[in-house]
Amino acid sequence: MPIYKAPVQDTLFILNDVLGYERYNNLPAFSETSPDVVEAILEEASKFSENTLHPLNLSGDQEGCVRHEDGSVTTPKGFKDAYDQYRDSGWLGLAVDPEYGGQGLPYTLHTAVAEYMSSANMALMMYPGLTQGAIAAIYVHGTAEQKARWLPNMTAGVWTGTMNLTEPHCGTDLGLLRTKAVRQKDGSFKISGQKIFISAGEHDMSENIVHLVLARIEGAPEGVKGISLFIVPKHSVDDSGNVGDRNGVSCGSIEEKMGIHGNSTCVMNYDDATGYLLGEENGGLKAMFTMMNEARLGVGMQGLSISEIAYQNAVSYANERIQGRALTGPKAPEKKADPIIVHPDIRRVLMTIKARNEAARALMLWSALKSDVAHQSDNEADKQAADDLLGLMTPVLKGVLTDTGFDHAVMAQQVYGGHGYIEEWGMSQFVRDARIAMIYEGANGIQALDLVGRKLGSNGGRAVQAYFKEVGEYCESRRDSETMAPFTKGLKKGLNDLQAATMWFMQNAMKNPDNAGAGSTDYMHLFGLVALGYMWAQMAEAAQIKLANGAGDAAAFYENKQVTARFFMERVMPETTLRLARVQAGSESMMALEAEAF
Amino acid sequence: MPIYKAPVQDTLFILNDVLGYERYNNLPAFSETSPDVVEAILEEASKFSENTLHPLNLSGDQEGCVRHEDGSVTTPKGFKDAYDQYRDSGWLGLAVDPEYGGQGLPYTLHTAVAEYMSSANMALMMYPGLTQGAIAAIYVHGTAEQKARWLPNMTAGVWTGTMNLTEPHCGTDLGLLRTKAVRQKDGSFKISGQKIFISAGEHDMSENIVHLVLARIEGAPEGVKGISLFIVPKHSVDDSGNVGDRNGVSCGSIEEKMGIHGNSTCVMNYDDATGYLLGEENGGLKAMFTMMNEARLGVGMQGLSISEIAYQNAVSYANERIQGRALTGPKAPEKKADPIIVHPDIRRVLMTIKARNEAARALMLWSALKSDVAHQSDNEADKQAADDLLGLMTPVLKGVLTDTGFDHAVMAQQVYGGHGYIEEWGMSQFVRDARIAMIYEGANGIQALDLVGRKLGSNGGRAVQAYFKEVGEYCESRRDSETMAPFTKGLKKGLNDLQAATMWFMQNAMKNPDNAGAGSTDYMHLFGLVALGYMWAQMAEAAQIKLANGAGDAAAFYENKQVTARFFMERVMPETTLRLARVQAGSESMMALEAEAF
Repeated sequence: MPIYKAPVQDTLFILNDVLGYERYNNLPAFSETSPDVVEAILEEASKFSENTLHPLNLSGDQEGCVRHEDGSVTTPKGFKDAYDQYRDSGWLGLAVDPEYGGQGLPYTLHTAVAEYMSSANMALMMYPGLTQGAIAAIYVHGTAEQKARWLPNMTAGVWTGTMNLTEPHCGTDLGLLRTKAVRQKDGSFKISGQKIFISAGEHDMSENIVHLVLARIEGAPEGVKGISLFIVPKHSVDDSGNVGDRNGVSCGSIEEKMGIHGNSTCVMNYDDATGYLLGEENGGLKAMFTMMNEARLGVGMQGLSISEIAYQNAVSYANERIQGRALTGPKAPEKKADPIIVHPDIRRVLMTIKARNEAARALMLWSALKSDVAHQSDNEADKQAADDLLGLMTPVLKGVLTDTGFDHAVMAQQVYGGHGYIEEWGMSQFVRDARIAMIYEGANGIQALDLVGRKLGSNGGRAVQAYFKEVGEYCESRRDSETMAPFTKGLKKGLNDLQAATMWFMQNAMKNPDNAGAGSTDYMHLFGLVALGYMWAQMAEAAQIKLANGAGDAAAFYENKQVTARFFMERVMPETTLRLARVQAGSESMMALEAEAF
Repeated sequence: MPIYKAPVQDTLFILNDVLGYERYNNLPAFSETSPDVVEAILEEASKFSENTLHPLNLSGDQEGCVRHEDGSVTTPKGFKDAYDQYRDSGWLGLAVDPEYGGQGLPYTLHTAVAEYMSSANMALMMYPGLTQGAIAAIYVHGTAEQKARWLPNMTAGVWTGTMNLTEPHCGTDLGLLRTKAVRQKDGSFKISGQKIFISAGEHDMSENIVHLVLARIEGAPEGVKGISLFIVPKHSVDDSGNVGDRNGVSCGSIEEKMGIHGNSTCVMNYDDATGYLLGEENGGLKAMFTMMNEARLGVGMQGLSISEIAYQNAVSYANERIQGRALTGPKAPEKKADPIIVHPDIRRVLMTIKARNEAARALMLWSALKSDVAHQSDNEADKQAADDLLGLMTPVLKGVLTDTGFDHAVMAQQVYGGHGYIEEWGMSQFVRDARIAMIYEGANGIQALDLVGRKLGSNGGRAVQAYFKEVGEYCESRRDSETMAPFTKGLKKGLNDLQAATMWFMQNAMKNPDNAGAGSTDYMHLFGLVALGYMWAQMAEAAQIKLANGAGDAAAFYENKQVTARFFMERVMPETTLRLARVQAGSESMMALEAEAF
């Protein structure tokens, strides 16, 4: 049975010492969350994650969801009960506007909590996770009446939500979608069509499910300019908020998937289902991106979450399993063999994951703070700057943290040798669950294109220039610091590679856009390396300050940060050179073959 | 339903044009295999793979093996019938000594055939695959009587074989094993203990199963110096070769695994089972390595095999799935969208896999030729040189081709978007099946240690020096060729990095062996890049010669080789720089943390 312990100390270090959480207490959401309150909330979240969510993870995978003949779906044993506790504790509405029953706390805090819960049970946490995306879309694009009707019960978790985008013939290219909406006299629409891969599309957790559905209104323009977003509830809701008759929407089947067996992935059939336009007619794509951007951050977090729990188990196994002797002589001479954590190649795995996870955690929280500033600051320049950086970093977080999250799960599984391949040990589940995060909410190749094709150039490159300036100035200002030079040197080298890659696109993508496409995935990872390296420099510096001020019992914690930062710069950061070389290789040999030649 | 087509044209190009197969016709095994015969055998193997093995692959995964209460195991529907055809066609004994009923054909040809069959159905092919490893061990270490008793029926596939090494508390560190052997008056032994992860340990395919079991004879020295290898048949066999009573060996359970569901992975219980010493008393490790080395080459091939079939399906999907438009303008304007093969990021995936697979195929066959020379040449210097290179390349083939084979399966799955995550499409199976190859027959970290800790230094570095000389001279002799420079330049750079890494180990591992361990996995991949790059240089050259001689209809095939070789040098080869940097980073930050700090 796998173990899990929420890394609360690490989260607090990042929030308090690295990111200066207290500096944000002028924002409304932060006013109630002193460091003590933050710590108390994190402790509650960790208890719930460790004791309630985590014990259901492996059994949920093994049992999976069951669809019955009437189209209803039963989730694995214990899931509903755990969800009820989650709902009753108010976790779902942690960062939601109090006007609709939320607690109005920082999105940053929501993000910290989300890591633990997704580590403990990713499949279960997808039910409320999708609800939060749907809440965001209705909150931003809904009318006052719609918000009043739908948000309170969704915020309370009494109703859950879904995103209905994909159809059998279209995923990425939503312009092809066929689900149609026919306008009714009362202003509502009748929705008909089939959606696939609908996570949490049908289940037994909530009394209603609020589907947000992309469809094409009769007579709308072709392509993405003609799609609109609709609210389509499973059950009708009257003006008093009471749940009534079943709507014309049903689960046709659930998919047999590689992982996340505890989440029901549904084929949803819409048959003259009543729906309500959300946002502007033919403006569905914009409304969709509101929930999509939220979802992408959540999925990036899933990458970290699975990486973290896989890592913890690999550490545990590496300390327990005895096999062979250390190359430098026995470390546990009283035993027949040393624990395998003495072997450098096992260390390589553990240090690599650790170094990336801790930076990923910092980067997620750094980005979440940008979201809070973007939504809550009363300074327009701050808002814009934060929104720019959040938009820039969203595809990086989604694409990089899910690619590496999967890689890390595989590496952690490898530590177990043959046992890693046996389902009862739980490592296979982490690999299988982590795999989906690279695919859904925009496959990672799409994230790379979003970064290179959209985010880099938007507003004349304002976001990326600001980011390069920030990181460059950070390195420059610490250039003469002996203690910081080991970190800023590697970071500066990475930044130079990233700037060179950016420049290469500017010079070569215009004459041939394939040159941008050909380098996009490598560029995204290059960006991720710099972003993580920037976090490590800041974490190393924060730890140095703590040590200088006398860290007492916690000194080892801060000393270890220095070591891990050094490892990152020595072993992980050099990858920027390779990524740059690949970007600069361009598209010629990549695109030269005829399709038949493959 | 996935597709599969055996890449016969590519195999023939490598054998005939790149490796000069005909040059070996002075070796006995090659005397009967003119190019025509080789082609005919490959065509037969491809038909059997495509039409018989492949259709059972997905269903075999979904159905899995079933153990019954009496300990018997049933394989998936159709497996026994397909195995019977395989057996009756004599495939198992293709390269086995005719004295024991084999066909005595080149191991190289066996290797070519094995690729197709493992692509088509890896789980099924493990049954005969393990038999071949057991045959090799008995052939090399058995007495004349043992060979006569066991080999003919194994070669004929009437009996199958297994390797019994792992116990619950020991895998890599076989010195810890506890299974015991008690000497009997008649010279046989009574074997007792438990073995786990025994592939093909029990099944319904053959009338007998010949287990090769590592055990410790009562009173033997501790550690690996006290283990011996035993032949332990499922059923006793009398002097006339008739199968008799059940021996004291049984399948206690079968494992629920991540993949290769069609192969029964058994817990085997030995309870005073009668066994016969194979090879020298306390010389079990040496005998085991005979089958292990054979098995490692087979597992390396599994990496390529799964990579190839995953690639073929990704190509097929990329040509069929329409989504979005090419960045350079519509390529299929008559359709609502272009096939996704127009997108550079899809091309990146396909070209990367293609470039590595074609070189991997060449490297497997290059290595198999070394095996044939090592076994059959009458020139001692040639034998030794071939054996050196085979030994050097074995961990590289196993470690690198299985790591990349898995990566490629994941990349190919990604091409399918959400469909890749759904089991019925078959891409998940490739990922799950490929995963085990990184683990079994020595986890890849062990391969890296074998390469760095054992193979590099053996006989004063004779093998590695010969290899560096060969590749260096190859580059040097083509330095002034305009057509070859694009390839030898990249290869030479890679070779320089590899030599620098080797030098670094020589200078730094003596004072601290952790410096070797810390860089071993990166070194193994660095070696693999150079070895694959060397194949690409030779393939490009062979293709140039064919073109110069007028290739007719096949010109496109050879032109495409140039493009793919260029892609390899531009996009894959630059990774050597990163691998070298990691090797040279040493072990300090990797080993600095206390175990509690993880």
